[in-house]
Amino acid sequence: MKRQLIAVFTLVCAFLMLAEVQAQAADPLPSWNDGKAKQSIIEFVAKATTKGSPDFVSPAERIAVFDNDGTLWSEQPMYFQLFFAIDRVKALALKHPEWKDKEPFASLLKGDVKTALAGGEHAILEIIMATHADMTTAEFEKIVKDWIATAKHPTTKRPYTEMVYQPMLEVLAYLRANGFKTFIVSGGGIEFMRPWTERVYGIPPEQVVGSSIKTKFEMRNGQPVIVRLPEINFIDDKAGKPIGINQYIGRRPIAAFGNSDGDLQMLQWTAAGKGARYMLIVHHTDAEREWAYDRKSKIGHLDKALDEAFKSGWTVVDMKKDWKVIFPFQLK
Amino acid sequence: MKRQLIAVFTLVCAFLMLAEVQAQAADPLPSWNDGKAKQSIIEFVAKATTKGSPDFVSPAERIAVFDNDGTLWSEQPMYFQLFFAIDRVKALALKHPEWKDKEPFASLLKGDVKTALAGGEHAILEIIMATHADMTTAEFEKIVKDWIATAKHPTTKRPYTEMVYQPMLEVLAYLRANGFKTFIVSGGGIEFMRPWTERVYGIPPEQVVGSSIKTKFEMRNGQPVIVRLPEINFIDDKAGKPIGINQYIGRRPIAAFGNSDGDLQMLQWTAAGKGARYMLIVHHTDAEREWAYDRKSKIGHLDKALDEAFKSGWTVVDMKKDWKVIFPFQLK
Repeated sequence: MKRQLIAVFTLVCAFLMLAEVQAQAADPLPSWNDGKAKQSIIEFVAKATTKGSPDFVSPAERIAVFDNDGTLWSEQPMYFQLFFAIDRVKALALKHPEWKDKEPFASLLKGDVKTALAGGEHAILEIIMATHADMTTAEFEKIVKDWIATAKHPTTKRPYTEMVYQPMLEVLAYLRANGFKTFIVSGGGIEFMRPWTERVYGIPPEQVVGSSIKTKFEMRNGQPVIVRLPEINFIDDKAGKPIGINQYIGRRPIAAFGNSDGDLQMLQWTAAGKGARYMLIVHHTDAEREWAYDRKSKIGHLDKALDEAFKSGWTVVDMKKDWKVIFPFQLK
Repeated sequence: MKRQLIAVFTLVCAFLMLAEVQAQAADPLPSWNDGKAKQSIIEFVAKATTKGSPDFVSPAERIAVFDNDGTLWSEQPMYFQLFFAIDRVKALALKHPEWKDKEPFASLLKGDVKTALAGGEHAILEIIMATHADMTTAEFEKIVKDWIATAKHPTTKRPYTEMVYQPMLEVLAYLRANGFKTFIVSGGGIEFMRPWTERVYGIPPEQVVGSSIKTKFEMRNGQPVIVRLPEINFIDDKAGKPIGINQYIGRRPIAAFGNSDGDLQMLQWTAAGKGARYMLIVHHTDAEREWAYDRKSKIGHLDKALDEAFKSGWTVVDMKKDWKVIFPFQLK
């Protein structure tokens, strides 16, 4: 019986290997137009994974980090987490009659997002704390899951998780098929991302690094809960990104993907390591299929990192030119 | 050529499978005496990994967390990281002439550890900050690696990394062979553990959660560095453990292994989830082969967690009775 089992396993195994050989022969990045950007990814992966190559990297060290907003999914006309927060303000308004006369809530409830956000970072922080704290982690997870399953983007009318970049999904899968561990390192909220990144990107919660608020552990009716507190714990942006990488991952990535100046230090930190390296910036150049913005944009501000990319020879993706499709729903 | 390759791969694959079948037939926990503790681990793994079983857990959710001090390696006569810190005080004394007249350093330099630590937590904090901060993460990593490669335990005269528990190494390997991801969740310093946990326990840096000090990112001569600051960032002990688990791993473990009251909240948090659960406490009962201590010990204080283990039916390992050997060097 044991031998029979082994024979069956062997057969299955052979088929799987055959399928893999065929898959490898096929194009691993079918949504990328041929060109320097696509070629640079394939060359890097070949270099890092070819035994005996001077640039070979052991599987344990194959760490790749990805920014989220503007790198894996869209971030216009504003960060999607802000849409979530605004929807939460509306949902919670009944419990907070005082918001009618208090900014930034008053403007938000009138539908005037621009005035609400005129208060800048302070206003955003107030909105985040009012909507992301004072509940258990389990309660927050459920709220995020419900929202992400039902909310629609204001212009495309698509679920936000459909506004992910098909070419980047292919890069994630391609790297993982070559023994890489893929991480998100995002300025977005860590607990806002974790409930859906595994399904959407194939990235499990333990490989998501992000901004966070403080929490506390307590017993409620004999049951342990973790409560979210209205206090910043960690901002995973700019110089915070290498700090977050060091704190959560504990080794330096060999590949980093970003799209804004918020990713500059993460790219620098990755670039400064020894051996095979890969740094890529997604440049939003496609006003027709997505959005076009860079040096003058508040959201996804890309200025210094673009200069450094050109200077240091990092790959700059021209979305309009390099990507056959932007979103999975555009696939034929 | 492709077909030939496939045939060779298939053959190799068949051999590997045969080896695995044989390994599974062998005892996965050979250093454990037969008894309730050993049986409970094997039953839990069978339950969690048998498809169709009502207690089946998908591989992605098979998260197991392990305390380090007293659970994976010894912690007597004091935490090993404290020996490291004291060795560092001695190494740094020349640069700090003022330490001759300043406690806790003065006593440490005279070899009087007891008086030095009489200052309690405050004294320990001073020693840690003086020896763990004000250098780059790369410099600290090198110091730890050098120390762990050369330092010897005061009574066994063995390298500290040989004072790991052979039966627990077997549990780690057994869980991983069954699709579990194993994490350390320790009150010890995260950057003190990461340089050697992969080699010693098979646990990579990104699966180590621990206490930490704050860091900052800066450019030095055009090169990015991360600098360790003399300021506490996070204490991963007691109620901090479920918080650390939530922050770093982002999902609730289904198995937790500890040995002291510092692990109680981690065990409670694990126990409170739905589905198959496994909670284990290593009880230090072997004064001959290791140390015997529990309710009255300052280090590895085990009192409330032991009561709760008995009350809730968690597994309590009696080291003297349940373990055939303690350390790998005792293996014949």
